[in-house]
Amino acid sequence: MPMGDFELHMELLPRSVELMKKGDSVVFRYIDERLLPVELRIEETADWRSVVDAVKTLAVRGAPAIGLAGASALALWANAGGKVEEMDGVAREIASARPTAVNLAWAVDRAMAHAEALPADEVPEALYELVKQMEAEDEKTNRAIGAHGAKLLGFGTRVLTHCNAGSLATCFYGTALGVVYTAAAEGKIERVYADETRPVGQGARLTTWELARAGVSVTLICDNMAASLMAAGKVDAVIVGADRIAVNGDTANKIGTYGVAILAKEHGIPFYVAAPTSSIDMAIPDGERVVVEQRSDREVLPVPIEGVDVWNPAFDITPARYITRIVTEKGSFTPEELSTRL
Amino acid sequence: MPMGDFELHMELLPRSVELMKKGDSVVFRYIDERLLPVELRIEETADWRSVVDAVKTLAVRGAPAIGLAGASALALWANAGGKVEEMDGVAREIASARPTAVNLAWAVDRAMAHAEALPADEVPEALYELVKQMEAEDEKTNRAIGAHGAKLLGFGTRVLTHCNAGSLATCFYGTALGVVYTAAAEGKIERVYADETRPVGQGARLTTWELARAGVSVTLICDNMAASLMAAGKVDAVIVGADRIAVNGDTANKIGTYGVAILAKEHGIPFYVAAPTSSIDMAIPDGERVVVEQRSDREVLPVPIEGVDVWNPAFDITPARYITRIVTEKGSFTPEELSTRL
Repeated sequence: MPMGDFELHMELLPRSVELMKKGDSVVFRYIDERLLPVELRIEETADWRSVVDAVKTLAVRGAPAIGLAGASALALWANAGGKVEEMDGVAREIASARPTAVNLAWAVDRAMAHAEALPADEVPEALYELVKQMEAEDEKTNRAIGAHGAKLLGFGTRVLTHCNAGSLATCFYGTALGVVYTAAAEGKIERVYADETRPVGQGARLTTWELARAGVSVTLICDNMAASLMAAGKVDAVIVGADRIAVNGDTANKIGTYGVAILAKEHGIPFYVAAPTSSIDMAIPDGERVVVEQRSDREVLPVPIEGVDVWNPAFDITPARYITRIVTEKGSFTPEELSTRL
Repeated sequence: MPMGDFELHMELLPRSVELMKKGDSVVFRYIDERLLPVELRIEETADWRSVVDAVKTLAVRGAPAIGLAGASALALWANAGGKVEEMDGVAREIASARPTAVNLAWAVDRAMAHAEALPADEVPEALYELVKQMEAEDEKTNRAIGAHGAKLLGFGTRVLTHCNAGSLATCFYGTALGVVYTAAAEGKIERVYADETRPVGQGARLTTWELARAGVSVTLICDNMAASLMAAGKVDAVIVGADRIAVNGDTANKIGTYGVAILAKEHGIPFYVAAPTSSIDMAIPDGERVVVEQRSDREVLPVPIEGVDVWNPAFDITPARYITRIVTEKGSFTPEELSTRL
C-alpha cells in the first residue's frame, strides 16, 4: 500500500503468540522476544509450565499477549490430560505469573468459566477452540482500536510511544502501534519516536524492530530525552498501551508512562492510551488500588555495586487527568466517559 | 564523623584530576571513569593530546573536571617544549574537545591569558602553578557550594540527582554532590536517589559508586522512574549540576535534566542547580543560544537495527522557570537574581 515515502508491510510481522495443532498434539508457538532485535526465534511447546515460564521471564510480554498465553497454557494442560478437579489450582498458578496485567487473570478466568460448563471429555477441544476464537478477537479488537485511534491523528503526525504496545504485545497488529499502523496505512504518520524503556528495553528492542520491519519510519531515543524532543516541537501525539485501566481512567502501564504523560501535558501535546476494553478493571475505582509489581535489582544493575540499592517498579499509574482520550475497540473516550459510555 | 546511621568517609574518594610533578616532568593524573564502578584505574600521562582524547572519550568528564583537564593539557604542552607562537592553535584544539561545557573554554582562556603576559621561558612553570591554583580553587569553590546548598535542606532529606555532578565531575568534592556531602556531614541526608542517566550511565556507574564509597545511602533508579518516585513521596529535593548557565538562569545540563525539572515542579518539589559561577556564561542571555552537542548513535544503540534512526543530544536546556534556586560558591540565588546579585 503506497503511503508517500514508504510502504507498509504488515505481512512481514509474524504473529507473536499462537495456539496450533500439530499432528495429534496441541502446541503453543511464540516469538522469544528476549532475543529481539538480534534474532527472530519462534519457539514451540506443548508444556503448559513452559508457557508460564515464558510469561515470567518476559519471553512473552504485553498485556493482550500474556492473556492469550495464559488461556493457551490452560488449553495445553487440558490437552495433556489434566484432570478437571485440578484445574482451579493450575489456573491460579498461571494467573499469578505476572500480577499487574488484568488481561492474564481475565483470560484465564474466561477459559475456566468456559471449561466448567462442559463435560470433562469436551474440555480439551473446547479450550483449544476458545483460544483460537480469542486470537481472532484480539486481532479484530486491535484493528478496531487502530481505526478509532487513527481518526484522532492528522496528516504528518509524529508520534512518541513508550514501551511496546505493538503487534509483539498482542497476538497481531498491536494496540498503541495498531493506531500507528492504521494511521500509517492512511498516509498520516511521518515518524514514530520510540522511548528506549529501561530497564528491559522493550522500546529499544521491540518497538523499533517491529516498526522498521513493517516499514514505518522510527527513531529511538533514551527515556530521558522525551522532554527535549517535545520542547523541540518534534512530537504531535503520545500514544501508549495499558496493562490495567481503573474505572475512573487511571492507567497502569510500563514504568515511565506517568512521566511521559506529565511532559506531554506541560508541552500541550495530546496523550492517548490505546487498549482493549478487557484492560478496564471494573473492580477498581481508581489507580491507587493497582498492585505494582517490583522486579529484580539485576534488571537495572547487572553487576551489583557494594552499598548501592535499587528501586525497580515494573509499572506506574498515570492519573486520568493527564490522559486526553482512551482508545478502545468500541470507540475513543475521555477518562470521565469510561464509566458512563462503556 | 558520626551522622546517625552512617559515617562519611570523604578520604576514601581519590581526586579525579590532578596535575603533578614527577622527577623532572609534569604529568596529568586522572581516574579513567569509563571503567567505574568495576575498576578504579588511575592513569598518568605527560602528553597533552592524550588529555584531549580523555576528554573526548569521557574518560574525564564533568564540567569543572574537563576545565582543569583543559588547562592541564596546555600546561603539559608548555612543559614539553611547546612554542609560544603555536599556543593559540593548541588552545583552540583543546577547547573544542567538548562544545557545550563553558568551563573548558573558560579554563583554557584563563591559562592562555596568564601565559601571554609572561616571557616565554617562564610559561611552563607558570602554567603548572596556575593549574595547581585552579585545583585548589575548585575544591574551595565546591566546599562553598556545599555550605550554601546545605542551608536549603532540612533533616531527613531525600535527594534525587541526575547524572554525576560529584567529586568525580570536579577535582574533588563535587557541586550537586558537594551539597549532599556537606548536608550529610550535618546529619541531614537520609538517602540519595541516583538517576541512571542513559545513555552513558553517569548516575548508574559514577554517582552510585562515589556516594557508596563515601558512605552515603544511595538507591539507583532508571531515568523513567523519577516521576513514580516523586509521586510515592520519596523525594524532598532535586539537586543537579550544570554545564552552562545563561544570564537569565536557563541551564544546560546532562540530557534528562529538563524532564526531571518539569516532574519536580508538577510534584511541588524544589529543584536546585549547584554550579560554580564559572559555569555562568555572561555572553548568552538565555538558553536558546547554547550549542547542544549531538553524540554518536552507538551510545544509545550499540548494535544497529536496520531502518532505525537514533536521536542522541548530550544535553538539554532547563528554562529558568523550573529552577527554584541556583547554588554557587557566592551564595544561592533565584534565577532572576543571577544578573543583579552576581
